[in-house]
Amino acid sequence: MKVAVLGTGMVGRTLADALARLGHEVAMGSRSRDNEVATRWAAESVGRASHGTFREAAAEAELVFNCTAGAASLDALSAAGAENLAGKVLVDVANPLDFSQGMPPSLTVSVTDSLGEQIQRAFPETRVVKALNTINRLVMVDPSRAGGNSDVFVCGDDDHAKDQVRELLRGFGWPDESVVDLGDISAARGTEGYLLLWLRLMGALGTADFNIKVVR
Amino acid sequence: MKVAVLGTGMVGRTLADALARLGHEVAMGSRSRDNEVATRWAAESVGRASHGTFREAAAEAELVFNCTAGAASLDALSAAGAENLAGKVLVDVANPLDFSQGMPPSLTVSVTDSLGEQIQRAFPETRVVKALNTINRLVMVDPSRAGGNSDVFVCGDDDHAKDQVRELLRGFGWPDESVVDLGDISAARGTEGYLLLWLRLMGALGTADFNIKVVR
Repeated sequence: MKVAVLGTGMVGRTLADALARLGHEVAMGSRSRDNEVATRWAAESVGRASHGTFREAAAEAELVFNCTAGAASLDALSAAGAENLAGKVLVDVANPLDFSQGMPPSLTVSVTDSLGEQIQRAFPETRVVKALNTINRLVMVDPSRAGGNSDVFVCGDDDHAKDQVRELLRGFGWPDESVVDLGDISAARGTEGYLLLWLRLMGALGTADFNIKVVR
Repeated sequence: MKVAVLGTGMVGRTLADALARLGHEVAMGSRSRDNEVATRWAAESVGRASHGTFREAAAEAELVFNCTAGAASLDALSAAGAENLAGKVLVDVANPLDFSQGMPPSLTVSVTDSLGEQIQRAFPETRVVKALNTINRLVMVDPSRAGGNSDVFVCGDDDHAKDQVRELLRGFGWPDESVVDLGDISAARGTEGYLLLWLRLMGALGTADFNIKVVR
């Protein structure tokens, strides 16, 4: 599948690497065509890897990952262009972290909204699925780093889009029984709000190589 | 130990019952001395159980549980009286839930504050420990309802106070290795923020008999 990964940070590079290893044709999108990180990533990557602007990467893609910084995501997606995102599944991995008050960061959205919903509202023709934002990047593509038996959450308004994401997650090593469907995109308030606990857990545990398992 | 349970809701009654069964001398505090629920609870309870106003219950207690509704907690604790809470451990179980916009509720505090911190600021001589607010009341006092291997979080500024809470939790069935210390009281932003995910999980799972386990 042709996949665009928007964002050249560590999350974007990790997901782009994993997708390329799985045989997908990955285009890394960034603000400028000559972005150094994206250029190097495409040159060093396995498989058919390319890079370009947000717009160029999104235009060619069948599915798009938003791995930009949460505070910059709406701008980045606007640069990609609503017409290049329409009808496509957008996996929103970003967290609306606010680092302006120091560490640990807080959130830029209130508890009655979420970045996932903001993106879905701004791009109504795009099928937004919030996923993977509750997990460190290395655990995202290798669940065994967190003991191998933890959960990943998905939410979104389109069931078929969630099925596609579930299939990608399977490729990353997440069995179907570890994928918890929280319902429509408003549940992004839940997974983004959980970040406040995740950050404290990282501080208390001294590592980001952890996750949670829902126990019944 | 003499324990006050402030609040006559389901959480308060469940914790008061469990504390009484463990041999503690429990006083249930409420707004008025003739509160019907508290009167009946004290009459039906095992052990030395009593009821009274928030002030009466707190005055006699060595340790206090705040089980009032989050939106009413500061008022209830003011009614209890700072002098009756000074020097004591206050276990804050409340969540600042905002039901004004319908279900699922949101939070009444912003992401840069928490009810736990508000209480600690309002009662600086009280040793506030946020605990148990991430778990349904029945699981609080019987971890086996959630599979028997999940975690409970504590945070607060006073390590000795957290040790006392850990001992109480042991009585409820939480082994020490299931008690995750998240640090100072500002970590209440994490456990209260997690409620946003908890509510969505309850909706998706169709039960409140669940919890999470931190997996590494």
